[in-house]
Amino acid sequence: MAAQSKREFSYKFWLECNGKPVLGKGGVQILQEIKKEGSLTKAAANLSMSYRYVWGYLHKIEKALGEPVVDTHKGGRLGGGGARLTKVGENLLSDYKHLEDNLDKFLHNAKSKRSD
Amino acid sequence: MAAQSKREFSYKFWLECNGKPVLGKGGVQILQEIKKEGSLTKAAANLSMSYRYVWGYLHKIEKALGEPVVDTHKGGRLGGGGARLTKVGENLLSDYKHLEDNLDKFLHNAKSKRSD
Repeated sequence: MAAQSKREFSYKFWLECNGKPVLGKGGVQILQEIKKEGSLTKAAANLSMSYRYVWGYLHKIEKALGEPVVDTHKGGRLGGGGARLTKVGENLLSDYKHLEDNLDKFLHNAKSKRSD
Repeated sequence: MAAQSKREFSYKFWLECNGKPVLGKGGVQILQEIKKEGSLTKAAANLSMSYRYVWGYLHKIEKALGEPVVDTHKGGRLGGGGARLTKVGENLLSDYKHLEDNLDKFLHNAKSKRSD
């Protein structure tokens, strides 16, 4: 029953600010979806999360960071409203993606190396 | 009462194998010290850890990996004995250090970028 050849390497990784967790895989999904949809409600629905959960998550990020990562605005009389990432939110997201790409590439290479 | 300028970014990161944590900051310290000292006892002492803790930590890594990361041998009649990293242990350690360097460099650059 195959033993050591089935090793699958991966990693856990998140950014912290002043020692507090700011952004991990979950937060990245949320920010990406908000960026794509321009709406907390739609982002939450796409991720099968409640609006309340998404809002709480963003609040936690913002508290650790001391600055909003998402700008929301009411939609006026017709309701709706929208959300977009702030500059800080955009930077955080792209920093994380950059690091993730790096880690993925490296793990992929290490994997081929190890399977010699 | 400086507010947002005091942001200090860092990260948490560890390697996993088949979904189980294998190597994080603590494990890296242990492997590095064993590599340097060639002895579990000395490594533990340098890190102000008990021998039992270090041994347990290594055991956890090896269980997740399905292979030893450290080779130990008894010292014969004169006691002592020694420990050295296996090839797998060496690879793991250097992979982790490589990734850590990458993350450090990137965070350092991101920091200068953000302080514009």
